[in-house]
Amino acid sequence: MAHPTDPRLTPLAQSLPATVPFVGPETQERTRGKPFAARLGANESGFGPSPRAIAALQSSAADIWQYPDPEAYDLRQALAAHHDIDAAHIMVGEGIDTLLGNLVRLIITSGDAVVTSAGAYPTFNYHVTGFGGVLHSVPYAGNHEDPDRLIAKAKEVGAKLIYIANPDNPMGSHHDAATLQRMISAVPDGCLLVLDEAYIDLAPDGTAPYVAPHDDRVIRMRTFSKAYGLAGARTGYAIGPAPLIAAFDRVRNHFGMNRSSQAAAIAALADQDWLAQVQGKVAACRDSLAAIARGNGLTPLPSATNFVTIDCGQDGTFARRVLVALGDAGIFVRMPFVAPHDRCIRVSCGPDAEIAAFAAALPQALASARSQE
Amino acid sequence: MAHPTDPRLTPLAQSLPATVPFVGPETQERTRGKPFAARLGANESGFGPSPRAIAALQSSAADIWQYPDPEAYDLRQALAAHHDIDAAHIMVGEGIDTLLGNLVRLIITSGDAVVTSAGAYPTFNYHVTGFGGVLHSVPYAGNHEDPDRLIAKAKEVGAKLIYIANPDNPMGSHHDAATLQRMISAVPDGCLLVLDEAYIDLAPDGTAPYVAPHDDRVIRMRTFSKAYGLAGARTGYAIGPAPLIAAFDRVRNHFGMNRSSQAAAIAALADQDWLAQVQGKVAACRDSLAAIARGNGLTPLPSATNFVTIDCGQDGTFARRVLVALGDAGIFVRMPFVAPHDRCIRVSCGPDAEIAAFAAALPQALASARSQE
Repeated sequence: MAHPTDPRLTPLAQSLPATVPFVGPETQERTRGKPFAARLGANESGFGPSPRAIAALQSSAADIWQYPDPEAYDLRQALAAHHDIDAAHIMVGEGIDTLLGNLVRLIITSGDAVVTSAGAYPTFNYHVTGFGGVLHSVPYAGNHEDPDRLIAKAKEVGAKLIYIANPDNPMGSHHDAATLQRMISAVPDGCLLVLDEAYIDLAPDGTAPYVAPHDDRVIRMRTFSKAYGLAGARTGYAIGPAPLIAAFDRVRNHFGMNRSSQAAAIAALADQDWLAQVQGKVAACRDSLAAIARGNGLTPLPSATNFVTIDCGQDGTFARRVLVALGDAGIFVRMPFVAPHDRCIRVSCGPDAEIAAFAAALPQALASARSQE
Repeated sequence: MAHPTDPRLTPLAQSLPATVPFVGPETQERTRGKPFAARLGANESGFGPSPRAIAALQSSAADIWQYPDPEAYDLRQALAAHHDIDAAHIMVGEGIDTLLGNLVRLIITSGDAVVTSAGAYPTFNYHVTGFGGVLHSVPYAGNHEDPDRLIAKAKEVGAKLIYIANPDNPMGSHHDAATLQRMISAVPDGCLLVLDEAYIDLAPDGTAPYVAPHDDRVIRMRTFSKAYGLAGARTGYAIGPAPLIAAFDRVRNHFGMNRSSQAAAIAALADQDWLAQVQGKVAACRDSLAAIARGNGLTPLPSATNFVTIDCGQDGTFARRVLVALGDAGIFVRMPFVAPHDRCIRVSCGPDAEIAAFAAALPQALASARSQE
């Protein structure tokens, strides 16, 4: 709903758009008047979290009257052991989005330059704009983010932050560790690389670069929302140099992390067998989605994530029609925002029944889109 | 741990203190090497949330793989019905702290003036400082915040925000609705009153002022952390004029609200019988705490909250010794930060066993404190 702007807002707040980065499927469901039959648009894990994480949520419910530990000490210790680093290198937050917001707030002030790829994560851009930063975008190289151009642009504009996701969303592509290590070694002085590894648990071995804990050229973002299946619990973490990690304490909401979510994340992390099962299911599902795409004359892109980006072979207008027709059929999927990637739709992996529903709906959705040409 | 400051931080971030507003009891427990026997320091509700809220947390655990509804639509609708206002006047966030942070970010930029009371909520001050605002404090009038002086100071310094909590924390006092209504009518043009009503559900009838939903002089903060017993679920909300509420969408983390917390809050709100039971238990417990204080020669202050602030009759040094001795005995309580309020300790209401543990420990704690004089 449009409102007149409150005149007490800061000039920066006055200048910000009223749009939001993502509309949730629940909003679409309310508009449709009925729920989606398949929820395959947000790269959630329909395979669910470890049963141990669910048990932790249930058993911790009785203690929910207590505030959370603002230090997330137990979770940070568990993560430190998992990564074999000191907990001083780890900050936990209410999802990567919150950590990105705090990071941008710490580093970016009015007019500071930030570099990202055109079509990369909109919520990062939202935070940069929200703190007065100036975004500079470089194109992807095909379906991959382009480390060399990101670095070159950062040098050109004197960027304080560079954002890259590896694996990438929305294209599903990835670079190998050596490529990322070359990129890290080229980060200009005074600049920080934000390496978003939300999908790293679903990528081939050898995708994650080795980064020394004290390396102050890079901060990594991880999440329990994807492979670990805890998107609703809002739990992410950053790994970085201790002085930068400590700086989060100057701006973050110390009591923002849900108490039960901390317990669930600890339980999820401890169940690496479950993670391995999910990785196997995701790999099989990627193959299924690729086969469905090919069976409909479309081109699935290789994926190192829990989704498959499907090239619909025409332009954004066509892909958008496919998306809308799928939505009308009860299939929630999303698509890249920016050309030329918006020739694609992006379909999350999920349980067989939901994938079957997508497979059943796709031919008619394509026919519908073609009929509108 | 002290770290060198990262040179990439903004000048504002560089200037911020590394201290945090509150240290959690878990940190103290780790230092002690054992848990507290009684958790009476954070004004949590040891009486717990509605069993329906616990059931909602447990039944929603299976859906935790899904992201939350970023609009918190169902919860906002339930709150709108509860308050008999339109949902456009309600913003849900991860506790009042998060909403205060977003509000300050929207309104305050470097050098803007903000007025509060010396010794009032430190987390509000943390956010003001965090966004470069300049805090101006006025003293309490005895054990009450002083609406007239807050308004006068706001006029004097051209404040953009005034903060008041009614009922007050840490003193437990309250003003009646008529006093607040006079205060609201005196808010200067261009200024906004932040009325923190975290404890309103525990105050006498007639404490909450009537505020027309479109009244743009005031924004109210409410929470499920206190009377509703859901502190760990991080769920608060703001009630205010629609243009200001809409502005939160420009800066907030849209997906920050835990999915299960939304379900729990809806269930808690629907169980007003449970709330009434808690109100009764809190009232009885306030009487118990007051009797314990008097039995030890101390002076309990009247309370409109779920805690009792106990005047220890000497200065901050003495009260701090009492606090430390209680902690050594396994009783977690807190105390006001600022003189002259720091002559007091602040004890939360809770179940009989915890109150009995406090009663058992207090005489020795007082003796210990007196022995150090």
